[in-house]
Amino acid sequence: MVALGGGHGLHATLTALRRLGDDITAVVTVADDGGSSGRLRAELGVIPPGDLRMAVAALLTPPERDAVSADSPADARLWASVLHHRFRGSGALAGHPVGNLLLAGLTEVLGDPVAALDALMSTLGARGRVLPMSTVPLEIEADVFELESDPRISRCIRGQVAVATTPGKVRRVRLLPGDAPACAAAIEAIGNADLVTLGPGSWFSSVIPHVLVPAQLEALRSTSARKVLVVNLSPEIGETPRYSLERHLRVLRAHADLRVDDVIVDAGTVPAGRERGYLEEAAAEFGATLRVDSVAAPQSSVHDPVKLGEVIAGLMADGSPATRAQGDEDVRE
Amino acid sequence: MVALGGGHGLHATLTALRRLGDDITAVVTVADDGGSSGRLRAELGVIPPGDLRMAVAALLTPPERDAVSADSPADARLWASVLHHRFRGSGALAGHPVGNLLLAGLTEVLGDPVAALDALMSTLGARGRVLPMSTVPLEIEADVFELESDPRISRCIRGQVAVATTPGKVRRVRLLPGDAPACAAAIEAIGNADLVTLGPGSWFSSVIPHVLVPAQLEALRSTSARKVLVVNLSPEIGETPRYSLERHLRVLRAHADLRVDDVIVDAGTVPAGRERGYLEEAAAEFGATLRVDSVAAPQSSVHDPVKLGEVIAGLMADGSPATRAQGDEDVRE
Repeated sequence: MVALGGGHGLHATLTALRRLGDDITAVVTVADDGGSSGRLRAELGVIPPGDLRMAVAALLTPPERDAVSADSPADARLWASVLHHRFRGSGALAGHPVGNLLLAGLTEVLGDPVAALDALMSTLGARGRVLPMSTVPLEIEADVFELESDPRISRCIRGQVAVATTPGKVRRVRLLPGDAPACAAAIEAIGNADLVTLGPGSWFSSVIPHVLVPAQLEALRSTSARKVLVVNLSPEIGETPRYSLERHLRVLRAHADLRVDDVIVDAGTVPAGRERGYLEEAAAEFGATLRVDSVAAPQSSVHDPVKLGEVIAGLMADGSPATRAQGDEDVRE
Repeated sequence: MVALGGGHGLHATLTALRRLGDDITAVVTVADDGGSSGRLRAELGVIPPGDLRMAVAALLTPPERDAVSADSPADARLWASVLHHRFRGSGALAGHPVGNLLLAGLTEVLGDPVAALDALMSTLGARGRVLPMSTVPLEIEADVFELESDPRISRCIRGQVAVATTPGKVRRVRLLPGDAPACAAAIEAIGNADLVTLGPGSWFSSVIPHVLVPAQLEALRSTSARKVLVVNLSPEIGETPRYSLERHLRVLRAHADLRVDDVIVDAGTVPAGRERGYLEEAAAEFGATLRVDSVAAPQSSVHDPVKLGEVIAGLMADGSPATRAQGDEDVRE
């Protein structure tokens, strides 16, 4: 199983997949330039470790079914808290999560972020693998409208924080460099997977970037894995305000020509009537079946890992989706 | 086995003891206020982690006899380098060893330096235990002569770096607070040990402080362990310039009334004739036998762990020293 994403959205998907098995590879966006990650990439030139650290922690904490396994859950919980713990005080370290510094240090010693992640995972007894989407730090650049009085004029906004907080409307994002090198191990994992998930997460900065790394997009097109897109529960302040579910799908589709088998949306977020028809049409553009289910945590805007895991397990148990045999070629222009 | 000390001297002793067995407790000075340790204690209020980190690394790297043990020596060597690795660049992190930050973070999360050290040792698969000499950060204060034109006037110099670099002559050191709380686990380890080593190391800042924590001195007096003092090979620039071996012993003796079984000095550093007689007299003030042996690494001013380990093993194999049965009481004033 391969889960593509970044941030808290990927943490939720990984926690869901942990309930289905141990052979999980997380592939994580590396374009963050804010907070501790931004400080570390600026100071040390390392790939931003924040989203990687969250994925490591997600694969560290055992799901309930593992409560009596050989690994001590107490140790795993301790290390998950230590990785996330942000230094206190008001000094030079304040706000840096311990795990970010540890990953940066391991990367300096080993000279390679993949070796650093493998060493950390192995020492902490985490299952599966965490990989960066690219082996170099990336930048996000966006065409943003509605920043000028003339709504037809777009401005080019650069940097993940700038894009995520722009008061304008993001139309399209690019990665810099444009030919971002993929992570070879991630390409291999996607090729060998029987399930690949994408999303949920910050749509322009954690989800869409995964289809903008050329070799990774090619791997997603050619894998025989079932591809499942998990759509956000609520529009994100900044990145996707007032974005309907349909618009989430259309904007992803506008960035890459990719076939997907299933699109999972939460029942509570699906519009009624004609709007629902539009949503199904948008899913059909990926060649995907719209899967409407209850996947949100109660009274919350985040996914419930137990419910999400059950829905994904259900899809996998149903066998090959109708659309998969056709391959990707026929949806290309 | 319990090894008291700090810095590189303790690293050498621990490496020597690792050749004799796995049941090793390192008890480490916590009065450093320089470098990364000084920055961290000032910024976060933690006990200075530098000397603790060095002791963890010493117990992590297996001696040759363990080369085929279950622990992968490659992993141990990797983590020893990672713990020691200082962040590069010229930013806020530059110069901090990764292990110092990890220990500081673990201490913030667990609220207790002993729990932090135990968690780190256990996760990295290190043998034995590393304990701080005191559970609070300590300060060193020294009476220093020869700073004024009148050689009879002493100045009070505070802070480990200031004491270590004073151009004057250090006569006596104190710890602040004066009633520094000992580490309960260290007291217990000293009580249960069959061997306790003290030194080598920076005499005023890594060795003498161990007899200035009241409860720890009491534990050293009452333990039935064989007590071995390992004297420095060369006078330390700053702290003990022009200090003879005899003077090392006399100045330690002036700080605490303590019985010691053996004083190990390197054959290459022992003076001839009358000076050697003075040295034997100084050792006798501790009730100790002077053990003159080749314990220095070739062409170097550091101890050779293999040779030092062999000398200590020889002492232990000889059985109880003649002086031990008498107890400590008879050397008190």
